Amino acid sequence: MFSNGLIQITLIQIDNYGRWTSSLGYDREDKLQILQASLYTDVQRFFSSLGGIAFFHSFDTMMAVTNGIDEGSHRRIQSEICSRYPISVSMSVGVSSTAYKAQRWASEELIKRNTSPVHSQRMILINSEKIVDEGGGLVQIAHFDVDDSTKLFLDTRSAYDAALAIDRSFQTLAFLLKEKEALLFFCGGDNFISPCNGLSTSELHEIITAVYEETGVKFKVGVGLAQKAREALKFAAMGLDEIRAGKYPGPIKLFSKIYTDQLK
Amino acid sequence: MFSNGLIQITLIQIDNYGRWTSSLGYDREDKLQILQASLYTDVQRFFSSLGGIAFFHSFDTMMAVTNGIDEGSHRRIQSEICSRYPISVSMSVGVSSTAYKAQRWASEELIKRNTSPVHSQRMILINSEKIVDEGGGLVQIAHFDVDDSTKLFLDTRSAYDAALAIDRSFQTLAFLLKEKEALLFFCGGDNFISPCNGLSTSELHEIITAVYEETGVKFKVGVGLAQKAREALKFAAMGLDEIRAGKYPGPIKLFSKIYTDQLK
Amino acid sequence: MFSNGLIQITLIQIDNYGRWTSSLGYDREDKLQILQASLYTDVQRFFSSLGGIAFFHSFDTMMAVTNGIDEGSHRRIQSEICSRYPISVSMSVGVSSTAYKAQRWASEELIKRNTSPVHSQRMILINSEKIVDEGGGLVQIAHFDVDDSTKLFLDTRSAYDAALAIDRSFQTLAFLLKEKEALLFFCGGDNFISPCNGLSTSELHEIITAVYEETGVKFKVGVGLAQKAREALKFAAMGLDEIRAGKYPGPIKLFSKIYTDQLK
Amino acid sequence: MFSNGLIQITLIQIDNYGRWTSSLGYDREDKLQILQASLYTDVQRFFSSLGGIAFFHSFDTMMAVTNGIDEGSHRRIQSEICSRYPISVSMSVGVSSTAYKAQRWASEELIKRNTSPVHSQRMILINSEKIVDEGGGLVQIAHFDVDDSTKLFLDTRSAYDAALAIDRSFQTLAFLLKEKEALLFFCGGDNFISPCNGLSTSELHEIITAVYEETGVKFKVGVGLAQKAREALKFAAMGLDEIRAGKYPGPIKLFSKIYTDQLK
Repeated sequence: MFSNGLIQITLIQIDNYGRWTSSLGYDREDKLQILQASLYTDVQRFFSSLGGIAFFHSFDTMMAVTNGIDEGSHRRIQSEICSRYPISVSMSVGVSSTAYKAQRWASEELIKRNTSPVHSQRMILINSEKIVDEGGGLVQIAHFDVDDSTKLFLDTRSAYDAALAIDRSFQTLAFLLKEKEALLFFCGGDNFISPCNGLSTSELHEIITAVYEETGVKFKVGVGLAQKAREALKFAAMGLDEIRAGKYPGPIKLFSKIYTDQLK
Repeated sequence: MFSNGLIQITLIQIDNYGRWTSSLGYDREDKLQILQASLYTDVQRFFSSLGGIAFFHSFDTMMAVTNGIDEGSHRRIQSEICSRYPISVSMSVGVSSTAYKAQRWASEELIKRNTSPVHSQRMILINSEKIVDEGGGLVQIAHFDVDDSTKLFLDTRSAYDAALAIDRSFQTLAFLLKEKEALLFFCGGDNFISPCNGLSTSELHEIITAVYEETGVKFKVGVGLAQKAREALKFAAMGLDEIRAGKYPGPIKLFSKIYTDQLK
Repeated sequence: MFSNGLIQITLIQIDNYGRWTSSLGYDREDKLQILQASLYTDVQRFFSSLGGIAFFHSFDTMMAVTNGIDEGSHRRIQSEICSRYPISVSMSVGVSSTAYKAQRWASEELIKRNTSPVHSQRMILINSEKIVDEGGGLVQIAHFDVDDSTKLFLDTRSAYDAALAIDRSFQTLAFLLKEKEALLFFCGGDNFISPCNGLSTSELHEIITAVYEETGVKFKVGVGLAQKAREALKFAAMGLDEIRAGKYPGPIKLFSKIYTDQLK
Repeated sequence: MFSNGLIQITLIQIDNYGRWTSSLGYDREDKLQILQASLYTDVQRFFSSLGGIAFFHSFDTMMAVTNGIDEGSHRRIQSEICSRYPISVSMSVGVSSTAYKAQRWASEELIKRNTSPVHSQRMILINSEKIVDEGGGLVQIAHFDVDDSTKLFLDTRSAYDAALAIDRSFQTLAFLLKEKEALLFFCGGDNFISPCNGLSTSELHEIITAVYEETGVKFKVGVGLAQKAREALKFAAMGLDEIRAGKYPGPIKLFSKIYTDQLK
């Protein structure tokens, strides 16, 4: 959408997790679930206190949008986690014009280390030299939620069926967003959040129209653009709220709120 | 699988969540994620300390397998959550011969309350009279993980692509399990857990064979059967470990460990 | 007070704590404070879910009243802590007719291990064979709070001075209680809690009268007696509430609520 | 010690705590202890991530040294706590040349609000206009620990007696420090931390000599001076470590490490 919209993605991975879980014996599933969710709350606390946002993603690997968060802060987060948990985390940072490319770059570096002969990694920070200067980039984030989800899902299906149906629409939406190099994360209930640098409003319209035609599920979308992720999310939430207030009552509901200071 | 295998599912739902989230203002997404994940760690702590297991499910609605956990314990969990969080939770309990029917029953009762004129519910416990006596039921749980997932996904795709692919195989597997009235929950990485009372070993074989043919993804499965969920999970983990140790090297890897005391 | 009032005290100690703290480098004080307080919340959650109560005591060493909590539960708590923290804890259990003797016995065994040639202990449970059978003992707990503390301290002194004055009255009260082999723990604000098996109502009266004469600080006291610590505390809180409601308006306010089922 | 050493203290108080605790019923003590300790971990996380340090103090009222932490950050902490807990906190900020005066000033303003006709306060921030500009002040912190505490206390007394004795030496030390307008906080084990702007090295020597003569307890002290509290604590820990390494083997062990950039 804007030429200088570099997005910075940090991949956070629990080190040597498989080996550690085995050390707990067989009666461990509850402990793993508690560890993963606790760790996520701490990772989220750290990054959001610095203006970023973290996603639970695949639970043992998390992703955060970290524009404006520097190498020292990444290292401090790693060392604080070490001081609170029986495990450590490695991090890899990618910066690119799209969220997809940023995470792919971060992934590739992490995989290289994982598959090296010295497989047992512990608390490395990769690509820290790529971290963008504060102000050097802009984050674009879209917040999707299902229109009239109560009627569509929650009051007409069992809780399990509703969640399965929502996950199916997640798959469809994620597939279309990936073609535009945008990511999508599930954030609870019927809420999906997409770091989507470079995606235009009309492309968003096309995507949610296509999802509607394919699945019958209508989405509302708010979009925010700002120097840091939390602020972009705030604008996206404002956009969604204006839609809910009935200001944009088109058949496909889309609203994009833009941080105007960046647009001059 | 066994005639007396009644499973008890508890549905846990945050009360009046939408209204409360709005009260936080627009800069709230990080706070919601922290609240949901913290709440889940506490719900998991409570239920697992009593032998049950909780799943994060759709984050604002959680599900737990709660055989052997009585009404008083459910009420204590509700009151402890009230004393630690700015929100309260309602719970609904279902008991049936399959996990799917148990959660559907629990859902239906909860929906009735939600759609009643007095919509603003707070901390109710539904169906508590249906809670099964300790020893009155048996829980069957299958633990799936992707065979050779490192080669298939983690070392050859970006972290985002790997998670998308794993979610796709989740969809396929969940669809087939639902036909047999079994549930499926994502538990991190490439791990899925299925409360699956009534599912036989040969049905499980058919299902993972079908998933393999459709998606190319091979699953290992361990199955446990016990009076309480955590113990069933422990047996399932033991089963998976025996497969990893090479004891069951068939093309489709499946192992079911059975709590023999129940089988006489 | 009652011949069969055996109290069970568990001492919980962080293993090799000094060595571990050094490994964190010099910028560590905040991390230590967070670790200690988090650990305490988990220790409290575990023991209270089983009917006990834990005190923060000296932060790196905690004490719990654990009547009715068996060896298996102690071991499970230890293993859960191991799965969540970068440290482990050792526990030592003492059972006696007074709280002071129970903790002294527990301490002595722990010190023996600590001073043995193999100093680096990790997650031992001592004296588990002494754990009393459920129903084998009774816990007596007194809950003290300062009468009219708002006028005495909070609205007339700075926050720091109020806390210092309250700590001074803690010292005086603890000294007198120790002569009767009762313990005293600070629990926030102007609240002190005393496991005090064997202490009679008239002895309690004498003690708070003496504190009043020496320091000018008047205490209200509620006393509870039950098979488990949390229930004894509940009765003590009920007693305090009756005093607040004005039912016992003597110059020295004392009320002891007794769990009558135990008294026949 | 240095003319421009203004220290900023923030007093954090749970709002309407007594009323809220009553609403929990009588079986509440474990819940209160968990709430207080959880809240403290969050308060500490917030302030320390910004370079400050928080003390648990009297559990329902906490104190933090907050030089360099501005009004917006204080307000964000308040709103985050609101989003995670069933209670809210008020804060009052004091700035002065000594820690004692800073907290007294903060206390006085808070007491005024508490005793006003509208007693039920909720989430106010007082004195925020007094918050010092970053760089406008310097924090001096001393870290005391008992010399040879293992021999003195831990291996020769029961855990309860050791803690009582350490609290007695806390009282003596706090009394002498208060005469110099320095504060003292218990931080676990035999560790006390003192925000002590304006206290000279020779005064510190006199104080720990007097404590030794009165109680037989020898203290080691490290002192740090920096723009922010966490950094001052880091220097104090470095000082203590040099003493332990035998570099300052005088009869009374004292070391003060000074952040030299501030001393030109």
